[in-house]
Amino acid sequence: MDFSLTPRVLALREELSDFVEHHVIPAEATFRAQALEGGQPPVMEELKAEARRRGLTNLFLPAPLDVAPDLCGPGLSNVEYASLAEVMGRSRLAPEACNCNAPDTGNMEVLAHFGTPEQQEQWLVPLLRGEIRSGFAMTEPDVASSDATNIQLRIDTDGDEYVLNGRKWWTTGAMHGTCRILIVMGRTDPDGDPHRRQSMVLVPMDTPGVELVRGLPVFGYHDPGGHGEIRFTDVRVPRSNILAEEGDGFRIGQARLGPGRVHHCMRAIGAAERALELLCARAKDRHVFGSALAERANVQDWIAQSRIEIDMARLLVLHTAWLIDTVGSREARAQIAAIKVAAADVACRVVDRAIQIHGGAGVSDDFPLASMYAHLRTLRLADGPDEVHRRTVAQFELRRTGRPAA
Amino acid sequence: MDFSLTPRVLALREELSDFVEHHVIPAEATFRAQALEGGQPPVMEELKAEARRRGLTNLFLPAPLDVAPDLCGPGLSNVEYASLAEVMGRSRLAPEACNCNAPDTGNMEVLAHFGTPEQQEQWLVPLLRGEIRSGFAMTEPDVASSDATNIQLRIDTDGDEYVLNGRKWWTTGAMHGTCRILIVMGRTDPDGDPHRRQSMVLVPMDTPGVELVRGLPVFGYHDPGGHGEIRFTDVRVPRSNILAEEGDGFRIGQARLGPGRVHHCMRAIGAAERALELLCARAKDRHVFGSALAERANVQDWIAQSRIEIDMARLLVLHTAWLIDTVGSREARAQIAAIKVAAADVACRVVDRAIQIHGGAGVSDDFPLASMYAHLRTLRLADGPDEVHRRTVAQFELRRTGRPAA
Amino acid sequence: MDFSLTPRVLALREELSDFVEHHVIPAEATFRAQALEGGQPPVMEELKAEARRRGLTNLFLPAPLDVAPDLCGPGLSNVEYASLAEVMGRSRLAPEACNCNAPDTGNMEVLAHFGTPEQQEQWLVPLLRGEIRSGFAMTEPDVASSDATNIQLRIDTDGDEYVLNGRKWWTTGAMHGTCRILIVMGRTDPDGDPHRRQSMVLVPMDTPGVELVRGLPVFGYHDPGGHGEIRFTDVRVPRSNILAEEGDGFRIGQARLGPGRVHHCMRAIGAAERALELLCARAKDRHVFGSALAERANVQDWIAQSRIEIDMARLLVLHTAWLIDTVGSREARAQIAAIKVAAADVACRVVDRAIQIHGGAGVSDDFPLASMYAHLRTLRLADGPDEVHRRTVAQFELRRTGRPAA
Amino acid sequence: MDFSLTPRVLALREELSDFVEHHVIPAEATFRAQALEGGQPPVMEELKAEARRRGLTNLFLPAPLDVAPDLCGPGLSNVEYASLAEVMGRSRLAPEACNCNAPDTGNMEVLAHFGTPEQQEQWLVPLLRGEIRSGFAMTEPDVASSDATNIQLRIDTDGDEYVLNGRKWWTTGAMHGTCRILIVMGRTDPDGDPHRRQSMVLVPMDTPGVELVRGLPVFGYHDPGGHGEIRFTDVRVPRSNILAEEGDGFRIGQARLGPGRVHHCMRAIGAAERALELLCARAKDRHVFGSALAERANVQDWIAQSRIEIDMARLLVLHTAWLIDTVGSREARAQIAAIKVAAADVACRVVDRAIQIHGGAGVSDDFPLASMYAHLRTLRLADGPDEVHRRTVAQFELRRTGRPAA
Repeated sequence: MDFSLTPRVLALREELSDFVEHHVIPAEATFRAQALEGGQPPVMEELKAEARRRGLTNLFLPAPLDVAPDLCGPGLSNVEYASLAEVMGRSRLAPEACNCNAPDTGNMEVLAHFGTPEQQEQWLVPLLRGEIRSGFAMTEPDVASSDATNIQLRIDTDGDEYVLNGRKWWTTGAMHGTCRILIVMGRTDPDGDPHRRQSMVLVPMDTPGVELVRGLPVFGYHDPGGHGEIRFTDVRVPRSNILAEEGDGFRIGQARLGPGRVHHCMRAIGAAERALELLCARAKDRHVFGSALAERANVQDWIAQSRIEIDMARLLVLHTAWLIDTVGSREARAQIAAIKVAAADVACRVVDRAIQIHGGAGVSDDFPLASMYAHLRTLRLADGPDEVHRRTVAQFELRRTGRPAA
Repeated sequence: MDFSLTPRVLALREELSDFVEHHVIPAEATFRAQALEGGQPPVMEELKAEARRRGLTNLFLPAPLDVAPDLCGPGLSNVEYASLAEVMGRSRLAPEACNCNAPDTGNMEVLAHFGTPEQQEQWLVPLLRGEIRSGFAMTEPDVASSDATNIQLRIDTDGDEYVLNGRKWWTTGAMHGTCRILIVMGRTDPDGDPHRRQSMVLVPMDTPGVELVRGLPVFGYHDPGGHGEIRFTDVRVPRSNILAEEGDGFRIGQARLGPGRVHHCMRAIGAAERALELLCARAKDRHVFGSALAERANVQDWIAQSRIEIDMARLLVLHTAWLIDTVGSREARAQIAAIKVAAADVACRVVDRAIQIHGGAGVSDDFPLASMYAHLRTLRLADGPDEVHRRTVAQFELRRTGRPAA
Repeated sequence: MDFSLTPRVLALREELSDFVEHHVIPAEATFRAQALEGGQPPVMEELKAEARRRGLTNLFLPAPLDVAPDLCGPGLSNVEYASLAEVMGRSRLAPEACNCNAPDTGNMEVLAHFGTPEQQEQWLVPLLRGEIRSGFAMTEPDVASSDATNIQLRIDTDGDEYVLNGRKWWTTGAMHGTCRILIVMGRTDPDGDPHRRQSMVLVPMDTPGVELVRGLPVFGYHDPGGHGEIRFTDVRVPRSNILAEEGDGFRIGQARLGPGRVHHCMRAIGAAERALELLCARAKDRHVFGSALAERANVQDWIAQSRIEIDMARLLVLHTAWLIDTVGSREARAQIAAIKVAAADVACRVVDRAIQIHGGAGVSDDFPLASMYAHLRTLRLADGPDEVHRRTVAQFELRRTGRPAA
Repeated sequence: MDFSLTPRVLALREELSDFVEHHVIPAEATFRAQALEGGQPPVMEELKAEARRRGLTNLFLPAPLDVAPDLCGPGLSNVEYASLAEVMGRSRLAPEACNCNAPDTGNMEVLAHFGTPEQQEQWLVPLLRGEIRSGFAMTEPDVASSDATNIQLRIDTDGDEYVLNGRKWWTTGAMHGTCRILIVMGRTDPDGDPHRRQSMVLVPMDTPGVELVRGLPVFGYHDPGGHGEIRFTDVRVPRSNILAEEGDGFRIGQARLGPGRVHHCMRAIGAAERALELLCARAKDRHVFGSALAERANVQDWIAQSRIEIDMARLLVLHTAWLIDTVGSREARAQIAAIKVAAADVACRVVDRAIQIHGGAGVSDDFPLASMYAHLRTLRLADGPDEVHRRTVAQFELRRTGRPAA
């Protein structure tokens, strides 16, 4: 057993940390101010340029892609990239700056694995360049989408075309000003085997019938690049826009899952680390009843508990990343379910403690804590609520345990 | 021991419930839409008129006031009014509609108890009429204000005038379009006895030097009528604007505390009740893996736990209200501290469970849950964080317990 | 709403507190030492005599019984008696000393309501006198007994006799040296309506075929008068030993439930109060790192949280007792389910904190805390586990809530 | 980063698992029955012989010892041994069977590092052989021993002898029938530097003045080989019985700490794993309301949560063991403090859930769960309560965090 980081990860981590602390975090206030004026805040382009200059873009890719090898990073394993995703999680701006933000990473991986050369040339290359953004239209407002067999959007065949009708929401990235392409999950074969009914097709945002109904706030936050609700009315795309084969929707969704889950979780842990630093700084700074908050035993308990929980959650995610690298996502299904429950829970708790220490300042926007909480709380729902993942973990456990000897 | 409600409370509660369910809650969407256009949403004036028509305004007053007896309610005890405050807590619009919202209620009580006839005529009467609103400027950005001796805003005497210099924030109500008057807590005698240093003075909002710096968002929510940050620069008011005597600031603050705490807590419980209803409705409506969420044992545990916690918290608050009525706020200090910890905690937990059941819809504004959570979470900080109140409760407990017999 | 105690309860409570503090608690060490020597500790008879002398026995009875009016208390309502049960809960010896211990109280009530004059003369009178003890044989080792329809012990009819075959465990009181009579729940009509299959019969302990297999320890504790496992092999009793009618088993069980649950819960709260006193005393006494534990903010948080939780749980139980008094056990089913969840949970948490403050002494027998914890933890299982009660509460809640207005 | 086990650990783990499942666990009932008859249960000698035969003794030693190389294992790193300690934790009998039980392991390490050749020959060799047992007399009844400067037992010098006076308790192992030697911590220099006041001396159990006052129960459990209270009255030992130098007591205590903490924690995790297996088996076996407990969503949540928590705690302990191996105990102080908080907490929670699923059987001795709980709960106190360790973790964290960039 060896918990040390490889030299190349150590070097990248140092570079990335420097970028995040000295460029990204200082740009947050500017970003917020520009966002209030509407549109995509220009400061992001500056950050993207700096990240590119430092060789910090597209690091999530497990191997350079033939279609554009010069745009890709060195090809890191999941466990290697995980430590970098944590650093990116410190600021909500860092993932996009490094072209490593959801859902683009997952969409790029899907295009790399399942896309035709034409699809890759048209959509993957500009995504790798950070010129456009993309959306992943999966969740629907009218059903509990955590049970994938509930999906209702229809993809009917009409000659050489697919015709889409239905409604999606929580389509992350759809509100982004440069979002050009959606991967849409829908039903091509309503009566087929429950796991072969769905397909994924590419739908350009400017296709007639694609209507961006509204942006969805998260606890009052309307982010540029946030979640959208989209109505599809007789949306027609050529059948060549299918990803892999008809009926492969569920399979692609599963393949997409593992690494993306690791990224989400490590970013949550990075956010928690920053929250803990803020907590400690404030606790040293503020005094009540004759002593600094940091000297009070209840605050010390919170700090210790936060440190312990963060370290445990990080190790769980890293171990899962290592399993994906060594035995594959399929064998690590239970662990991939487990980490989202653990990481989101821990991160919410740590940030909540940091808010409490900050008093009124904690719920305002003078600190990133309230926004962190809103998004981390949402992580407990996005991509399946905790309960669905706990159910998966329990089913594996129940299958695994035979008759104990007691 | 008798837990039944008096007939007059039962009647008022029925009237009030009808008003809230059939007028206030249906107006929430309109209010939100109007608020986006800026200014105070006009629908509120309609609600206020309807509340007046039904005799549902100013019910918080423990006795009719000589200054305007026709504007006052029947004079309810704290334990009687508590059950009505719970109903008002179901919608964030109801308290203002009924002219029972913080901080106006506390400010009106202060004016009624400590104001001169002139002060009452000028400010209390229009407040009772709901024509103007008021702010209570206590918390400061630069110190931990939960320790009142930390207060820094200076109130210096210059001839017949007071001169105020300093900064306040989380001044609830200051952002309201019709806010005309502030009660400001500051230091008149920096070297005096720690609990006699502070005074409260009346400062009209339009006094030169009063600068409304900004509104403070709560988890991304910018409410009309929300919390403001205010800078006071050489603000001059006549010395007749003092409330009671110089040095009475702390004493007035204490007197203001008990009933207001009961109102806050009961409103939190009303919000929790509504959240639980929404939880149950959604759980009956949504299906996963072949059954309604309401049939799943974990969801049933949440529902039961929510019911149990809400009932316990309500009884604790009602008992405290009864103590205020029978032995007075001073004797009930520990209980008044306890209820805010308990009620805010319970309400946050119940609303959080309701959010979880609603999935993405829960964190959006399609339901009132995310907004409820944001404001209830803030209640754990407003008016002193949980930790300060727990400290109070513990100190009473430690003083109370002698040598046990074991 | 009125939270005050009636004068007669205040007087009884004072007398009882004096008895518990100055007689019962000081006798605990003697009791423990005598118990180690086997048999029923003689000191209990002294306590019983003192309780009788002070008029503190059989206070649980809601009204004097015709069969022996001089042995009964004044006839207290449930809400009145509840405050006395709390005081008795301070020591594990007090309930028996006051002839108010489970399961004798429940058994006496059953005999009073459903017993024939002969059954009352034979068993109820000596029970009221405290001369004999009784057991309630309900739970079975081979099935989840929380689902009453699982009950398997057979009660077959053979001429004028019933023949019992089966196994029971957790029969509280069966290990008591003077236990003479069991109320046994079994199936008389295996194919009948699920709630009419069971009956209750009286079985003297000395009936041939009744075999006391073993005492059941609770976390290592073997109490005199503790829980027994009993095997019934062709046990024959006359059919006149039936309680009420055949098929009434479930009905009698329900009737027995409400008041007994209130007693259990109030005793748990009394235990928690004593634990909190011990916690405070130890916290004032012990010093680490230069200050008393009582001055440390985390310990203060525990104390405050304990006080808050105890007060909430007490009010919930008192409110339920009042409901039983005013609308009856049937209408209060959900509340009767709720209080056991709440009271056992709170008591376990408070005692656990007290243990933590006591260090090693807390888990030993130098303090009553470890024993308290063991028995309170068992209360979360006895008489149905938490989960069954939460399910009941949730079902009521789901039925109650219609369509909310949101 | 590499989470795989070395081949030699995999082989040892398989052998050890086989031994524990097929010899140790089946012997538990026999052990309990023999213990009731008093003295050390003979079955333990059979287990010890089998463990020796399989080469499973003294595996905790990091390197073979010169004094008796043939008695030692292969010399495993801390991270290697940790996985074996987990397996031993499955049964309370396994550690002694494998001569790897506390406090003997720690005492043997102390003797190996700090003992003279004579001390090693006299005490270490028979300990390695499993012929004798030892005690570690540190905690005192009259002070909060978690603050080591509170230690009061006096070690005075009188010519060539030390004279000990004082009282110790929770001396694990002292009650064991073959306990022959104590390592006693006491004050040799009451006025010296706070961390140089204490020394450790070897005191044979049969020295005049050593009085075994009583065994200390844990939640009602009196274990053979359990914790003792010992009075030292003018106990005289030659000055050659000192370990290292006078004033080294605190230093030796620190050195002893790291590996022992890892062992304790991994055993706790092994116990939790067994509890989870029992939970799953019972949940599959028992039915209520028409379905197996294992199909109920709340039980599934418990199972998943248990799996997640166990895996996180294990990784945290393994990481700490790896730190001890690579940077040393001193550098890993915060982590060594953290793991006891985490592992004991997780293990208590998992076992508590398993108890709940087992109903009455869970708190009895029909399953090992109640006993597990009692001992794991004690682990939250032994060797310093959680609060002391959290304080250590917090102090490191506060020192580590500078000014955050936000």
